[in-house]
Amino acid sequence: MKIIIVGATGTMGKHLANAFEKEHEVIKAASKDGDIQVDITSAASIENMYKQAGAFDALICTAGPTFVGPWKKMTDKEFRKGIEGKLMGQINLVLTGQHYINPKGSFSLISGALTHEPQLNFANASAANGAVEAFVRAAAIELENGIRINAVSPTVIENSPQYFPFFPGDIPVTMQQLEYGFRKAVFGANTGQVIKPY
Amino acid sequence: MKIIIVGATGTMGKHLANAFEKEHEVIKAASKDGDIQVDITSAASIENMYKQAGAFDALICTAGPTFVGPWKKMTDKEFRKGIEGKLMGQINLVLTGQHYINPKGSFSLISGALTHEPQLNFANASAANGAVEAFVRAAAIELENGIRINAVSPTVIENSPQYFPFFPGDIPVTMQQLEYGFRKAVFGANTGQVIKPY
Repeated sequence: MKIIIVGATGTMGKHLANAFEKEHEVIKAASKDGDIQVDITSAASIENMYKQAGAFDALICTAGPTFVGPWKKMTDKEFRKGIEGKLMGQINLVLTGQHYINPKGSFSLISGALTHEPQLNFANASAANGAVEAFVRAAAIELENGIRINAVSPTVIENSPQYFPFFPGDIPVTMQQLEYGFRKAVFGANTGQVIKPY
Repeated sequence: MKIIIVGATGTMGKHLANAFEKEHEVIKAASKDGDIQVDITSAASIENMYKQAGAFDALICTAGPTFVGPWKKMTDKEFRKGIEGKLMGQINLVLTGQHYINPKGSFSLISGALTHEPQLNFANASAANGAVEAFVRAAAIELENGIRINAVSPTVIENSPQYFPFFPGDIPVTMQQLEYGFRKAVFGANTGQVIKPY
């Protein structure tokens, strides 16, 4: 299977690339380094990535920039980080990718527990996650040729301890659990699902 | 109570304005006509609306433009309609409005059943709704001075029969039910809730 991982040089993407490249052709896409450079805040850059990658079977996205910070001083400007990044970035990966993906292929996006369990300073990520999850449900009834779409929704990630203080009481999702979530999304048969790997 | 209704000249806003102005001071804001003109896709226009309205007790938004149409030809461009309208429009009403609203005031936004029950052609609205609902949960733990925030989530609206064919099997929400939903949001004590008026 030919799998594109967007965010392949990040904490989650690196783990998934290592896990999946043993049995599959993995194309690593990232803002820096990787096999293909892509800026997911640019629809043109996304189109260019797909042109370079050619037809593929699965798209995994673990890239989702959002604004983290005090809410009271948050304006339109700060909020755009997650809107352009985790939200429109991932949606454009699908809107454009539907024209490049093989029949029976799949899109696996990243959301997160913040959709339903907010934490202080993370309202931007909550909104982006909520949009991505609702989009996944809507896209699942629109995509043709057996193409599937799901989101994986972890809590805070084991290998990102710098975030632990912001997520009191959230049991970190291990890298193995996260991998299981994406395995279900990519190699399973579900579509329109929000997969909680815990 | 001084209530600003954004979208006051639309199908939902007109009903709510009529219902609430019997007992409250209602300021009608809309893109055309109304007491104050506002373009919710512009953060500057929103700021200007609040400056004209002065301190207030409740903000109701029933304005939520989104793109409706075939998904396969949908690009970044079409998707922006709901991102700038129903999503960022409503979020900016809150981010800016928090600096003008009275203590113990409330924000009541509009989402919709499409968050969890998608229909063909409405993926843009699904994504916008999902973002608004997650934002409401996140904002509820950030807003200070007893300020509340909720979303009202109807299905298709009784007085918008032109949409019925797109919502097979959805029992239309009556104008009275919709009004009850907003009454709970504005005059109740809940916060961070998605209120289904059916």
